[in-house]
Amino acid sequence: METMVSSRTKEVRIGHDLPFVIIGERINPTGRKKLAAEMAAGDFSRVISDTHAQIAAGAHMLDVNAGIPLADEPAILAAAVKLVQSITDAPLSIDSSIVKALESGLSVYQGKALVNSVTGEDERLEAVLPLIKKYGAAVIAISNDETGISEDPEVRLAVAKKIIERAMDHGIPREDVLIDPLVMPIGAMRYAGRQVFEIVRRCRDELKVNTCCGASNVSFSLPNRGPLNGTFLAMAISAGLTSAITNPIEEHIKTAIMAADVMTGNDENCLNWIVANRAPQPEGEAPAGASGGCGEGKGRLRD
Amino acid sequence: METMVSSRTKEVRIGHDLPFVIIGERINPTGRKKLAAEMAAGDFSRVISDTHAQIAAGAHMLDVNAGIPLADEPAILAAAVKLVQSITDAPLSIDSSIVKALESGLSVYQGKALVNSVTGEDERLEAVLPLIKKYGAAVIAISNDETGISEDPEVRLAVAKKIIERAMDHGIPREDVLIDPLVMPIGAMRYAGRQVFEIVRRCRDELKVNTCCGASNVSFSLPNRGPLNGTFLAMAISAGLTSAITNPIEEHIKTAIMAADVMTGNDENCLNWIVANRAPQPEGEAPAGASGGCGEGKGRLRD
Repeated sequence: METMVSSRTKEVRIGHDLPFVIIGERINPTGRKKLAAEMAAGDFSRVISDTHAQIAAGAHMLDVNAGIPLADEPAILAAAVKLVQSITDAPLSIDSSIVKALESGLSVYQGKALVNSVTGEDERLEAVLPLIKKYGAAVIAISNDETGISEDPEVRLAVAKKIIERAMDHGIPREDVLIDPLVMPIGAMRYAGRQVFEIVRRCRDELKVNTCCGASNVSFSLPNRGPLNGTFLAMAISAGLTSAITNPIEEHIKTAIMAADVMTGNDENCLNWIVANRAPQPEGEAPAGASGGCGEGKGRLRD
Repeated sequence: METMVSSRTKEVRIGHDLPFVIIGERINPTGRKKLAAEMAAGDFSRVISDTHAQIAAGAHMLDVNAGIPLADEPAILAAAVKLVQSITDAPLSIDSSIVKALESGLSVYQGKALVNSVTGEDERLEAVLPLIKKYGAAVIAISNDETGISEDPEVRLAVAKKIIERAMDHGIPREDVLIDPLVMPIGAMRYAGRQVFEIVRRCRDELKVNTCCGASNVSFSLPNRGPLNGTFLAMAISAGLTSAITNPIEEHIKTAIMAADVMTGNDENCLNWIVANRAPQPEGEAPAGASGGCGEGKGRLRD
């Protein structure tokens, strides 16, 4: 099962036997006061620098969100989408909770977009799915509905299944729906990780769909979040997670994802890993987590 | 299902709902020429420093191996076991491929030891299992036999099942057999990781036993091995791995294991993580992977 999204000139494929797809999370004014104020005032300089920085760090796609209170979100989202598409060929995830904003973003998008997101409430499904179909997009479906967010993976799976079926009723193929298992903060909910791993595995094995999640939430309120987020992603990847909206600029996250690709066999011949870790480094900067020179790759670490 | 091992004064429990158990791998002359020469000459100073360093780094148990060509392995192993038990209360894994050495180590051990290891050949089972029973030990069982190491998880599971049944025939309870899925180098065998994850999951779900593996082998021949080993362990833990013989002094490994315990919910209230990452650090040294101060734990990372 492969999901294809694209820009005007570039396709990205998401699937269980492909390298993990990183969707850069940074172009999002939620909780970023400066960025929000700038975007509301028509200053997109930080959007441009965030685009370049995330692509340089290895993002395969970028999420674009313009959720600013009291601002004209549909207009700002469309402007941001156009701008980002003018400076990168990475496909985008168009991110809003406002249907009008999603449509505005989709109407200017060149290629096959990913839409972030639809939830399982009937009203929501009937508002968003026709847009997905109209613009030939793919969509992230969050597995909660009118009844709230269940802690029971069984219920979350059932909601996911319902959304997939409803999408298919609208003529959207199964491979264009990515299920988001909805990651809760583990500091508040002890088994939040186990729940995600089970949902992701069953999305792969039973529902036969790809998956995507926002990863940062898992470490909310805990110290040293980078290694927690990176480790969480690696564990979710081993359960079958195929993409995530995350921050590739955070070294622990990028390194954990690349290492996880090696461990699933999806980094063929370990080539991405070898290239990333053998590249010459600027003086004084070791590659992420290097504890010695390249030579130590030759054998077992001893003495 | 819990496995208990002990020293004279301390018990360690291994299980799917308990923090992951780290068995320090360093007291092993294989590939360590200096250590081998010293141990053969009766100089155990490095065994002492390796004991202290691994315990300080968070090892819950220590593996002790005295496999030195042409040396009197049974005598050296017994001496090492006695020495290590005199300076730490961590239970030990007595590690040898020579049955006489295992018996020699077991005969001086105080507590309930772990024996590393038995394989599935009939002759081997009939030599080692009576010792396990006699000394009331637990044992690591490597899932290969006369037919070699199969790449088919089905075959490896069948060998594991046979060893468990044979152990039970000898009066050794199921919980005292830890299956080692046998980790192969992923640089040479693309799906070595997936195989391990499947075997470990099925050991938990179908055979209802605990698991243990040597982790370092997976990254053999690859650069920057620390993050590969750490990520591999986190992924294996999410599949159900309950212990490993590894190097806790390697920061990536220790951090990945601690983060994985948070993600499985086995670090209750995230207490071990919080304590390890909030402890005051010596000036100029950030905690493993810290990208900022503790304050960033308060909310989502933004700007």
